[in-house]
Amino acid sequence: MRIEILNTGTELLLGNTVNTHAAWFGRELFKLGLRITRQTTVPDGDAIREAIREAIRRADVLIVTGGLGPTSDDLTREIAAEVLGLEMIMDEAALRSLEEFFALRGRQMADANRKQALAPVGADVLPNPQGTAPGVYVPPRLNGRSNCAVFLLPGPPLELYPMVRHEVLPRLRALSGVENPPAVLELKFTGIGESDFHQGIDARLEQIPGLEYGYCAHIGEVDLRLIGDAEAIRQGRAIALEAFQTFLISEDGSLLEAALVRLLSENRKTLATAESCTGGLISNRITDIPGASAVFTHGFVTYANEAKVSLLGVSAADIEAHGAVSETVACQMAAGALHASGADIAVAVTGIAGPDGGTPEKPVGTAWIGLASRDGGVTAFKVFHPRNRHDFKLAVSQAALEAVRRRILGI
Amino acid sequence: MRIEILNTGTELLLGNTVNTHAAWFGRELFKLGLRITRQTTVPDGDAIREAIREAIRRADVLIVTGGLGPTSDDLTREIAAEVLGLEMIMDEAALRSLEEFFALRGRQMADANRKQALAPVGADVLPNPQGTAPGVYVPPRLNGRSNCAVFLLPGPPLELYPMVRHEVLPRLRALSGVENPPAVLELKFTGIGESDFHQGIDARLEQIPGLEYGYCAHIGEVDLRLIGDAEAIRQGRAIALEAFQTFLISEDGSLLEAALVRLLSENRKTLATAESCTGGLISNRITDIPGASAVFTHGFVTYANEAKVSLLGVSAADIEAHGAVSETVACQMAAGALHASGADIAVAVTGIAGPDGGTPEKPVGTAWIGLASRDGGVTAFKVFHPRNRHDFKLAVSQAALEAVRRRILGI
Repeated sequence: MRIEILNTGTELLLGNTVNTHAAWFGRELFKLGLRITRQTTVPDGDAIREAIREAIRRADVLIVTGGLGPTSDDLTREIAAEVLGLEMIMDEAALRSLEEFFALRGRQMADANRKQALAPVGADVLPNPQGTAPGVYVPPRLNGRSNCAVFLLPGPPLELYPMVRHEVLPRLRALSGVENPPAVLELKFTGIGESDFHQGIDARLEQIPGLEYGYCAHIGEVDLRLIGDAEAIRQGRAIALEAFQTFLISEDGSLLEAALVRLLSENRKTLATAESCTGGLISNRITDIPGASAVFTHGFVTYANEAKVSLLGVSAADIEAHGAVSETVACQMAAGALHASGADIAVAVTGIAGPDGGTPEKPVGTAWIGLASRDGGVTAFKVFHPRNRHDFKLAVSQAALEAVRRRILGI
Repeated sequence: MRIEILNTGTELLLGNTVNTHAAWFGRELFKLGLRITRQTTVPDGDAIREAIREAIRRADVLIVTGGLGPTSDDLTREIAAEVLGLEMIMDEAALRSLEEFFALRGRQMADANRKQALAPVGADVLPNPQGTAPGVYVPPRLNGRSNCAVFLLPGPPLELYPMVRHEVLPRLRALSGVENPPAVLELKFTGIGESDFHQGIDARLEQIPGLEYGYCAHIGEVDLRLIGDAEAIRQGRAIALEAFQTFLISEDGSLLEAALVRLLSENRKTLATAESCTGGLISNRITDIPGASAVFTHGFVTYANEAKVSLLGVSAADIEAHGAVSETVACQMAAGALHASGADIAVAVTGIAGPDGGTPEKPVGTAWIGLASRDGGVTAFKVFHPRNRHDFKLAVSQAALEAVRRRILGI
């Protein structure tokens, strides 16, 4: 089944907004065993006509996003109906939903919003509980001009994503006739590089009949994706885990912070953080996870040396003698956070994010990570990530979270 | 001038990689007064042929990225030459550069890399100091089949971006003949919504001859983009600032946290943070900015009530009586952070991120923001952002940073 995505929006081509829809659609469709054969972006307005006309000749399914709003440059609905040769009529149920949407919020519905309830004759109107723009589904062969099924969907992710999950994917599954989409398993690893996988297991994965596999490397993370039938995936997984089990973050797409919150929770342990160079990124990542409050209690962002001394009890003399970015200070920060918080485990980071502050002995990108726990003493190790400030913070936070995970697991 | 971008890469359509090239190109071209008229993504391989064939019929300039590597699915060079009806020849200078690239790194050049020095007859080979894939420029009318100028460029940003700046943009400027590209000014605002702009100034902006304008709304931020000649932009800016000066974040693309770090620095003030529901996001955003260490010293992530009491001196009885998400606690957190840090200003947040923990009186999305300063006393205000956990944290952090900005400016 040839599936095309057409994203409309001048802001996408001016570069104000990065198009994240396309990648999101790719992942969602892949779970059904489907792939996007082409993605196109055009500006608002007339360019949509040409793009729809071309796409319905090539594709079995066309998914259009954007241009369903109430303003004068929102033309997707009208243009699609015209290209498909379908009349537009007012959908009474959609109009009532719109009126209710505004009434619920105590706002007056503008006249311009009425056109959002228009739809091509015979099309399905797809409800949008999150906003004012209902979607439209034109089944194949509704018109004489094309066999292509056409979806018109709103642009804002908050409205788009639920509509795709509830209205689009079930229809695509039915259209595709794929009964048993290939299974997909994504294994996330950290503390190990893509080349370790190539050298370690590629040759063995190649031997498994019907297995397709691939890697995706992020900062401090490598994802291994296995695609195939259940037996092929079972074999691929066994090989990957035999080689790299101790580096495994998750098998369900969970990020390292989610895996760590779960691990802390299962082990009834609490965590405290003491951050200098990461500036709160570690605690921010942990608290992105629902349920973090059960395992994370205290975070210290001791950006100034004075804060390291007063909040964590780091020795001012040691900062003077060894520098704030040192094994000694990382250990004292971790021990101090453990003491001040009463948590079971504390992790501390101190480093040089740059662009300034580096020296020949401690260049930008250097960080020390300290670890203290009630039962495991105090240790520290050095990492070196000479990257831009943002990526440095991310890489160091990843190493710190991973260190906590290993301390809990005793590996 | 009709310019199309064609991004090739199966990973883009599977959703493993978000396409950031398209937006980047949009911004770079816009500085020359040029716009992308269409962007297309196709998978590696044969789909590239059809996409190039269609694009060179529509466009004056086609920019293709990806598929210039040494492996068997890197086919862009061969396919483009075939579609344009041009023979491929070995470019001796490119081959020497490739050999030098490997020699410099002490690596053996594989045979597969030799094909990277092939180029259509008569094309310019674009040097790639960052990698092994040289680019290709086929000028218009080099062949009998199309008037379209074609660029073939490498996919990795580290190789692509410098090649575009050094080799592509100068050629585009010459092709376009645009001597004085329009100026662009982006004004960022916070604490005000897009509809306020529509109602407040759209009618007056419409009156300015030669001014094009548009809005882009993010969480806690609205960007106003003004495009036109210097006089049109001057007038548009004056109208926007007359109406909304106090909500202005920046005129140079700076984020709120960057504007705040600069403002603190100019006023020689230091800031401390006390975060509950945002979990370190505020301090993380501040420390993303180079130079933050001069103005930000202490951050407290008091996720547990006990941490609010022990680190910030919040009254346990008041938490009991009013709840942790309350005006009283927000004020005590801010005052406590000010006292414990010795900073000039402290901002505190306490709220309910959800998904659990809401009540009818304090639903998920409720947060109190407290503010304390040496010279301005202690105050707090409530915000309500019933969003998902991630967006809630972002919206609350934005409101907190904005509150600090207003306190410093005394507005």
